[in-house]
Amino acid sequence: MTDQPTDRPLDPATLTAIDAYWRAANYLSIGQIYLLDNPLLREPLQRKHVKPRLLGHWGTTPGLNFIYAHLNRVIKRDDLNVLYVAGPGHGGPGIVANTYLEGTYTEVYPNVSQDAAGLKRLFKQFSFPGGIGSHCTPEAPGSIHEGGELGYSLSHAYGAAFDNPDLIVACVVGDGEAETGPLATAWHSNKFLNPVRDGAVLPILHLNGYKIANPCFLARIPEDELRKLFEGYGYAPIFVEGHEPAKVHQAMAAALDHCLAEIKRVQTDARTNGFQGRPAWPMIVLKTPKGWTCPHEIDGKQVEGSWRSHQVPLSDMNSEAHVRVLETWLKSYRPEELFDATGKLQPELAALAPTGEKRMGANPHANGGLLLRDLELPDFRAYAVETRAPGAASAEATRVQGKFLRDAMKLNRDAKNFRLFSPDELASNRWQDVLDVTDRCYTADLEPNDGTHLSPDGRTMEVLSEHQCQGWLEGYLLTGRHGFFSCYEAFVHIVDSMLNQHAKWLKVCREVPWRRPIASLNYLLSSHVWRQDHNGFSHQDPGFLDHVVNKKAEIVRVYLPPDANCLLSVTDHCLRSRNYVNVVVAGKQPAPVWLTMAEAVPHCVAGVGIWGWAGSDTGAEPDVVLACCGDVPTLEVLAASSFLREHLPALKVRVVNVVDLMKLQPASEHPHGLPDKDFDALFTTDKPIIFAFHGYPWLIHRLTYRRTNHKNLHVRGYKEEGTTTTPFDMCVLNQIDRFNLVADVIDRVPGLAVKAAGVRQLVRDKLIEHRQYIHEHGEDLPEISGWAWGQKGVARIGSAAADTASDNG
Amino acid sequence: MTDQPTDRPLDPATLTAIDAYWRAANYLSIGQIYLLDNPLLREPLQRKHVKPRLLGHWGTTPGLNFIYAHLNRVIKRDDLNVLYVAGPGHGGPGIVANTYLEGTYTEVYPNVSQDAAGLKRLFKQFSFPGGIGSHCTPEAPGSIHEGGELGYSLSHAYGAAFDNPDLIVACVVGDGEAETGPLATAWHSNKFLNPVRDGAVLPILHLNGYKIANPCFLARIPEDELRKLFEGYGYAPIFVEGHEPAKVHQAMAAALDHCLAEIKRVQTDARTNGFQGRPAWPMIVLKTPKGWTCPHEIDGKQVEGSWRSHQVPLSDMNSEAHVRVLETWLKSYRPEELFDATGKLQPELAALAPTGEKRMGANPHANGGLLLRDLELPDFRAYAVETRAPGAASAEATRVQGKFLRDAMKLNRDAKNFRLFSPDELASNRWQDVLDVTDRCYTADLEPNDGTHLSPDGRTMEVLSEHQCQGWLEGYLLTGRHGFFSCYEAFVHIVDSMLNQHAKWLKVCREVPWRRPIASLNYLLSSHVWRQDHNGFSHQDPGFLDHVVNKKAEIVRVYLPPDANCLLSVTDHCLRSRNYVNVVVAGKQPAPVWLTMAEAVPHCVAGVGIWGWAGSDTGAEPDVVLACCGDVPTLEVLAASSFLREHLPALKVRVVNVVDLMKLQPASEHPHGLPDKDFDALFTTDKPIIFAFHGYPWLIHRLTYRRTNHKNLHVRGYKEEGTTTTPFDMCVLNQIDRFNLVADVIDRVPGLAVKAAGVRQLVRDKLIEHRQYIHEHGEDLPEISGWAWGQKGVARIGSAAADTASDNG
Repeated sequence: MTDQPTDRPLDPATLTAIDAYWRAANYLSIGQIYLLDNPLLREPLQRKHVKPRLLGHWGTTPGLNFIYAHLNRVIKRDDLNVLYVAGPGHGGPGIVANTYLEGTYTEVYPNVSQDAAGLKRLFKQFSFPGGIGSHCTPEAPGSIHEGGELGYSLSHAYGAAFDNPDLIVACVVGDGEAETGPLATAWHSNKFLNPVRDGAVLPILHLNGYKIANPCFLARIPEDELRKLFEGYGYAPIFVEGHEPAKVHQAMAAALDHCLAEIKRVQTDARTNGFQGRPAWPMIVLKTPKGWTCPHEIDGKQVEGSWRSHQVPLSDMNSEAHVRVLETWLKSYRPEELFDATGKLQPELAALAPTGEKRMGANPHANGGLLLRDLELPDFRAYAVETRAPGAASAEATRVQGKFLRDAMKLNRDAKNFRLFSPDELASNRWQDVLDVTDRCYTADLEPNDGTHLSPDGRTMEVLSEHQCQGWLEGYLLTGRHGFFSCYEAFVHIVDSMLNQHAKWLKVCREVPWRRPIASLNYLLSSHVWRQDHNGFSHQDPGFLDHVVNKKAEIVRVYLPPDANCLLSVTDHCLRSRNYVNVVVAGKQPAPVWLTMAEAVPHCVAGVGIWGWAGSDTGAEPDVVLACCGDVPTLEVLAASSFLREHLPALKVRVVNVVDLMKLQPASEHPHGLPDKDFDALFTTDKPIIFAFHGYPWLIHRLTYRRTNHKNLHVRGYKEEGTTTTPFDMCVLNQIDRFNLVADVIDRVPGLAVKAAGVRQLVRDKLIEHRQYIHEHGEDLPEISGWAWGQKGVARIGSAAADTASDNG
Repeated sequence: MTDQPTDRPLDPATLTAIDAYWRAANYLSIGQIYLLDNPLLREPLQRKHVKPRLLGHWGTTPGLNFIYAHLNRVIKRDDLNVLYVAGPGHGGPGIVANTYLEGTYTEVYPNVSQDAAGLKRLFKQFSFPGGIGSHCTPEAPGSIHEGGELGYSLSHAYGAAFDNPDLIVACVVGDGEAETGPLATAWHSNKFLNPVRDGAVLPILHLNGYKIANPCFLARIPEDELRKLFEGYGYAPIFVEGHEPAKVHQAMAAALDHCLAEIKRVQTDARTNGFQGRPAWPMIVLKTPKGWTCPHEIDGKQVEGSWRSHQVPLSDMNSEAHVRVLETWLKSYRPEELFDATGKLQPELAALAPTGEKRMGANPHANGGLLLRDLELPDFRAYAVETRAPGAASAEATRVQGKFLRDAMKLNRDAKNFRLFSPDELASNRWQDVLDVTDRCYTADLEPNDGTHLSPDGRTMEVLSEHQCQGWLEGYLLTGRHGFFSCYEAFVHIVDSMLNQHAKWLKVCREVPWRRPIASLNYLLSSHVWRQDHNGFSHQDPGFLDHVVNKKAEIVRVYLPPDANCLLSVTDHCLRSRNYVNVVVAGKQPAPVWLTMAEAVPHCVAGVGIWGWAGSDTGAEPDVVLACCGDVPTLEVLAASSFLREHLPALKVRVVNVVDLMKLQPASEHPHGLPDKDFDALFTTDKPIIFAFHGYPWLIHRLTYRRTNHKNLHVRGYKEEGTTTTPFDMCVLNQIDRFNLVADVIDRVPGLAVKAAGVRQLVRDKLIEHRQYIHEHGEDLPEISGWAWGQKGVARIGSAAADTASDNG
């Protein structure tokens, strides 16, 4: 088969019908942008029929409509299961128009009926107060992709196709979007798609040549170069080009026929003979004019085929001449042929659309909650690290989590609805036990030394692109599956903006009654700020937490489990939750285990609690509260408490550990927020609080500024000081270490500065000793280093622990 | 010329010498990772000579060293001006080794002398407490690219090449980095490089096949596909492959000779005949084993040519066997041939390096402050919008700014050191007047409708990739030039992580004495959260400010000018500043001009001040403070104040406007922070403060929680509510509108709730009226809409304004 089909597959009647369907969608799109009334133009168009504020984007819309109409033909003919992803999401009116034409829109919004009154509502609501947004928002049936922030359509499409062998995801990529980085690497997703078990993605690069104001470079390189680019990306591109509808209809139909045949051939081959190598998947390059079918010129300036058609091509409606131009434009689609007397689409046109769930607006994959099955999870308690006393055992928390995930992976292997995503950090973040039960997914070539854990059947997705990991995972979740994203903490900022868009999507979904809940987006942030021993300053940034808590409180959850057992409990909870963004921060280095599983579970459920065994307040009102959130801060606070117990035994220290960060917010601000009286009971109303926090210290202030005792709150955290140095020195550089915490206590407990001047001097000396030692030896003093202290600390706090461990809550 | 040179350009002596130089660099790299002492192995290696903690990355280093040695040859031969960008920045020891060998390292750090004692210091300091980081950090001479967060090397390289016609930027792209999105689109930078006026970028894709744990897909696709990919990107790739040094030296030398000849041919042609079309620039694909020259196997597992060589290939040094392996490995480079008795590089090897500023470690472009010239700036006051009274005039603030930038562009045209960067939003953000004096830069093909403002000579850089804009601009600034990045506010989050890295770079540079200050990185964030009329919820996010203020206070500055005149003043300041990240938020829509230029300048210098004309406290202690920060909040606060004046004339309202956000922080936290007594004088110590803020409200709390009157501070801002609705309705949805602000005042001023119950009801009614009106008409009530209110407001506040305008400060 040649790569450029030349046949003309549409008979004249079908061509005419498809063109009419396309005209109907275009008409309805323009109607949404412009019309307040007179939806069928049954009276002469007047200014008053036109919206006062004209909002929306026409330029991309006729192309989206064109593709939709052609997909309908093949879906209906071959009974295909197709999901439509509109990269240029600001072509929203086109998607709404098509779902209206096929009937799904009216099914979910009955008041937008299939008659003149419904048309009027359809038109008015678009970009109108109280109506719908201008993009492919969650309100739009069939959409999993809002398409406002450009760059993620193709990753979403691949994510949707994974583990959906019967699904074809038609993904329209705008030539503007194609300039973005995330999209530029997303083409390489084909190295991770397995034709045996996954569905197909059919990318349709829509070259209409222009962005808001500029040409797009992919539309301005020679066709030969463009072809090589996509062949280099591993595709077999088919070019469809033109501006005369009849000709482009034929070419598009032929191209689609060819691509679907190719997809079928590839899949049949792979499913019959097994995976034999990465195929060259088909794709389409569709080159049509921007704003196709709008007036070619307005006021002497070219509009169709120009950037001037990007938004509203004709926007000054106080000009009577423009009203006439608009009327002529609208009438050029011949609405009188398309809709019957009641305003309903003519039955012979309506018959062109597929029916039931085969309609792209009704595809259940686009409302993934419909298809969602609970994960089978093993009992996380079975993975507990036994510890005879707080700190007596040591574990790499994320490695323990990895064992739990390994068995979760095993239990859901048949359900094929669980994958892990990571930018080449799965093993680095210590999840490698997962590889005992599944490989890394890879469909590119392999060389002998590549190791044994790579195969087309793998369920861990590793690619050095946080954008791809996030985009694939979003697509996977939005179509009703489960996943976990493991990332270096500092580099998760790479997907800040993607998190924004997903959180916004989830927020709006809660307000759309027919959208069913989907599995939460779960992040493990490991290789965190405090342990960048190999990498230093550029790898230190705990600010994703600050970013996440700006999103709607109903959506975001943040957990900083202090040890491996708490991490297990939190992980189980996250995998069972729905419609959230769960951010879990945990270390991968050997670290003390403080709580038994029996203690960890209630502590994690409470989200915050007093660790009686670690303090010296024994139920009484303390002199000072030492609070901690995060694994390294917890270690330092416990060491500080132990030090104080030894050197200032009369001081009553309370230790509070925070797992669930949002507990700190007022209950009025976040569903997890502690009521004020509970907060006051933990943190007192008037005693100094020294709070050691994993992240930037001011985040704690931002969460607690309304609390009674906020004025006495002193927070230590990361303050952008760091380099490649020892683990303990990282703490010292940011003054979150045990000695600086002890100094903070002495400085802040009234009267202690004088009484404890000797201890104050002692911690100064300890810090000097530390610095001298590391500059000479390059590693921490043995009695200070990491988890080793935990075991020593146990000796110190052991007896207290035995008495009070049962107080945990 | 064929694309695969087959000649053998190195005579045997040169080959031997280059190989020796490479061995020396490799030896020094391994020494840095491993050795604490015995740097020349003049005694048998013992455990005590080896560092206790082994940190660093060997895998990429021999490749970086190999390329460096070969570049030295051609620089010296042809007297070239070459800047070296190491994409895999964790190959830091290689860059340090090479700059040490060529002498630049010792010049900037004389204690790291060129003898055995210096060698010992060189080795010990690497990834050692008190020493240097493991990446190409600012401490490394010749570096403009830390290379910790992967993805930006090629954008940086192009940014450095712009307007440096004699410069060749050799950019090593790792095959891990090549999987990232930003890098995947950065190859397209060649559509924006003009061979007449710009330098050349020579990309060297280093396929060593592995990341931390996985193969890289570009190393696992057929060579034919890879070649097509790069030809599709517009390059002419040369492949160099092998593992036998002698053969690869010849092939690399031939490839470099070919590429440099091609660069010269392209540039000569373009500079002789003018730009005739985008050339196919040469590039090199270098395929060598990961960890090349390290032990092939350790403990029975393959290390060289495997992911196992990514970090420290041999890390358990408590094994005597491993100490012997390390010794054998180090001795395989034959250090005794490379260094003389004192430990200095043999003179015949030292002679291989270029001299003076031609050494890549001494290239002044890598310390851009050395080359920085001040911008010539017109007097910004000349662009002032005249206003006879506050709010009487209206202006699109960023359009006014654009006129100033237009003339700045003109004044610096000959200096060729100023560019503007934008993701297709220059005109959308209203800077289009700049196009009167310069075009958009574009070297791809053009079509007739593309407009007249595109040319290879343009100085505005528009590409639909925030990553590219940021990366190019960083490269441009780091090499001593000036720029401004105009971005939609919501989508600047796309470069959150890039901002992190640049801010970290600037922070460290302040601590490196030989690094000279560079021009600030300036952002204009426009098309902001409050005016996404066309686009709705996905385009609404003011959280970049939260992100930025987490960076070091010495680096970040945030300005929210309330009107066009203030924006001019702020812009002038930003363009004159050094070593900062300046974030400026300003609207593009018609909006009232509140201050004359004579008033705007001192207000912006102060950064915060009382607007006496807008309040009703006439110098007395007020009953309430209405504070505002941002253009839309300022309008709403002024409208609220006006409303209160009309309906509650006895209430003493003080209006405070904040331009410089960091004024709110304590002076101890930020250099711009107001002293507490000044803050208290503005905001009182006990009166309610209603603060209308452009961004997320809690940011204001995070900045002010230490202030005396924080307990009375009530902040309104964006709280993630929005859709495509009217401008005023956006304010209402987030309760930052004038009526909700009035309600806040009534609810919070003691005793007012009862006294002003009627006014409270009135604002409720106004809000109902508003909602009814917009649902019917789709636009705001005429008396409420945007700047129109400003003009009406003037009538209300006019007389007060005339009396008190001179009080501004």
